[in-house]
Amino acid sequence: MDGHSTPTDHRGLTVLGLGECLDRIRGVRVGRLAFVHDGDLVVLPVNHGVDGQDVVFRTTWGSKLQHAQQAGLVAFEFDDFDEATGLGWSVLVSGVAETVYDDHEIARLEDLGVRSWAGALDPLFWVRVRAEQVTGREITRQ
Amino acid sequence: MDGHSTPTDHRGLTVLGLGECLDRIRGVRVGRLAFVHDGDLVVLPVNHGVDGQDVVFRTTWGSKLQHAQQAGLVAFEFDDFDEATGLGWSVLVSGVAETVYDDHEIARLEDLGVRSWAGALDPLFWVRVRAEQVTGREITRQ
Repeated sequence: MDGHSTPTDHRGLTVLGLGECLDRIRGVRVGRLAFVHDGDLVVLPVNHGVDGQDVVFRTTWGSKLQHAQQAGLVAFEFDDFDEATGLGWSVLVSGVAETVYDDHEIARLEDLGVRSWAGALDPLFWVRVRAEQVTGREITRQ
Repeated sequence: MDGHSTPTDHRGLTVLGLGECLDRIRGVRVGRLAFVHDGDLVVLPVNHGVDGQDVVFRTTWGSKLQHAQQAGLVAFEFDDFDEATGLGWSVLVSGVAETVYDDHEIARLEDLGVRSWAGALDPLFWVRVRAEQVTGREITRQ
């Protein structure tokens, strides 16, 4: 008990607030998108952007990622750990994935600077994960 | 077409063989474990070890990770990307999670050098993800 009021969870990990979670997500280039596809759990690394409280990414027709927006509920995990010390943080965004069709919205997302995934072929389209829950934890000591 | 026979997928990503996948997993300390818990998709960073073709990790009673071995089917994702170039690889292990009860097996797993997760309290127990499918991809050029 060191007297300050940083919230911790039952494991003693520091709980990150929403704003802090979004800042952390903006600071990394790759997240891991999880969804259920034909009864299988799929987890894929994806380049992402942050738009308000939502996470956005680009994909192409026929890819596994396309199924994410058909799957409905998805989870998007982000983290960064120091291999030497084991210290780091993780954030989990849960929500519903949906394709972006609005031209103005697409133009705005194009300005986010999200890297195209290797091997991605045109036409690319944008998918928005409308965040329903955002939770984050930080390991500040072992 | 450069004449060599490295297999690629429909996106042009290099396909990693099973042995290569397991080598890559051994080379990183943290993976992301995904499972369905009470209808929610959960993805958590987890320190892991490799035992044969299986991935193993430690957890404690009452944690979310405990539910992984009740959930049955889980997916364990591993990756490493260079932030500057975007090059890297990812491996996905799908399988069934089960608790390890055999004392000899536990003793062997203790020798793998898997780091305890921060905040983890005793008693810790081992969970084995019996790999049913292991797939890996590498991005060698943008």
